[in-house]
Amino acid sequence: MTEKTPCIICVAITGSLPTKADNPAVPISIAEQVESTHAAYEAGASIAHCHVRDDEGKPTSDVVRFSRLMEGIQTHCPGMIVQLSTGGRSGAGKARGGMLTLRPPMASLSVGSNNFPTRVYENPPDLVDWLASEMKTYGVKPEIEAFDLSHIYKAKQMVDAGEIGARPYVQFVMGVKNAMPADKRVFDFYVETVKHLFGEDTPWCAAGIGRHQLELNDWAAAAGGHLRT
Amino acid sequence: MTEKTPCIICVAITGSLPTKADNPAVPISIAEQVESTHAAYEAGASIAHCHVRDDEGKPTSDVVRFSRLMEGIQTHCPGMIVQLSTGGRSGAGKARGGMLTLRPPMASLSVGSNNFPTRVYENPPDLVDWLASEMKTYGVKPEIEAFDLSHIYKAKQMVDAGEIGARPYVQFVMGVKNAMPADKRVFDFYVETVKHLFGEDTPWCAAGIGRHQLELNDWAAAAGGHLRT
Ligand SMILES: [Zn+2]
Ligand SMILES: [Zn+2]
Ligand SMILES: [Zn+2]
Ligand SMILES: [Zn+2]
Repeated sequence: MTEKTPCIICVAITGSLPTKADNPAVPISIAEQVESTHAAYEAGASIAHCHVRDDEGKPTSDVVRFSRLMEGIQTHCPGMIVQLSTGGRSGAGKARGGMLTLRPPMASLSVGSNNFPTRVYENPPDLVDWLASEMKTYGVKPEIEAFDLSHIYKAKQMVDAGEIGARPYVQFVMGVKNAMPADKRVFDFYVETVKHLFGEDTPWCAAGIGRHQLELNDWAAAAGGHLRT
Repeated sequence: MTEKTPCIICVAITGSLPTKADNPAVPISIAEQVESTHAAYEAGASIAHCHVRDDEGKPTSDVVRFSRLMEGIQTHCPGMIVQLSTGGRSGAGKARGGMLTLRPPMASLSVGSNNFPTRVYENPPDLVDWLASEMKTYGVKPEIEAFDLSHIYKAKQMVDAGEIGARPYVQFVMGVKNAMPADKRVFDFYVETVKHLFGEDTPWCAAGIGRHQLELNDWAAAAGGHLRT
């Protein structure tokens, strides 16, 4: 983590949801993803949050694809931090963590369950523990995905239990239907909670989903957090 | 709801977890449950939060058992409010709401998903919507089970959408492993959130699980909430 940079920008070049049919500009192939990450890198982004797709454009946890994407970004964007997604949209169970053996510098880690627009986002306790232990084994720094307040407290318990390192990097995810809305009052409490649990200077970031992206970026910039685009 | 009572005490006579093997004093049969509820009623409890068990002592959503329990309590504890559990430990899918046709005055309603000690507590969005619509059809007042902060915000969205009535009765559930811990800072924010979203005078209650029960009762009594024993 480049702690001395005043503002870290984390770019999510390809989410797990949009398809070429939704938006022909969405980068799907590895080459397209590397190109698009490079543009963000030149514009100042320092972390690349990465998903990969299969040949049909569907989210996958395929280790070979993750490996090619990581290598491409590291070659074309020197110094950029690659963060691979272990999120549940791309696979189920331990398949979600197969790419951790690639030893990426960072990976996302969901530590609780919550509702998504039309289903349950399932992160069973034993899977959370396993993903954390794999990250520890392979020296991967987790980004804790906080879809709700208790997830930040769960991160604290995992720090205390030695499952993850001190001062975890928490990302607040807001604006997902049926999870936490993009609410300024809650955002402020999230920031206070991170400072309270992990110390004043602990870096954190915030992601607003869909139409909430710019709003969350404004709030995060004003409160000293990192941005996610 | 007896709004004029300064302090409502809600008694959960038989949870979904303890068995006779854990504690021979746990009331399991309908007769035992009515007897135990009556003792709490005489001691001042005004709401009875009810689960039922099958012949083997396992949690069930059986409508006939719920009907007998409700009738027993209403006969022996005049004026006591019967609240039937639609929680996920007793059944799956729509079976969880079968007892709503009995038109109990209240029923519990989980509006989001979260982790429990060893599994995911699943409340998919479509099931939440269906349970709420059944409660509306049968005139049942929901008690919103808030296992996390976003659940209180979800209740607000359901009020705004007309899925539940204004000023919902929210219960904060704290101290469940892998969900929200019993934390005073969060408790205070929960109370502020209910007032902020539903109005200063909206009643609410709090339940501390296991060893956190007395602590939560103290906090709730001091903050003007109702107690759950
Ligand atoms: Zn980030
Ligand atoms: Zn992602
Ligand atoms: Zn209650
Ligand atoms: Zn219950």
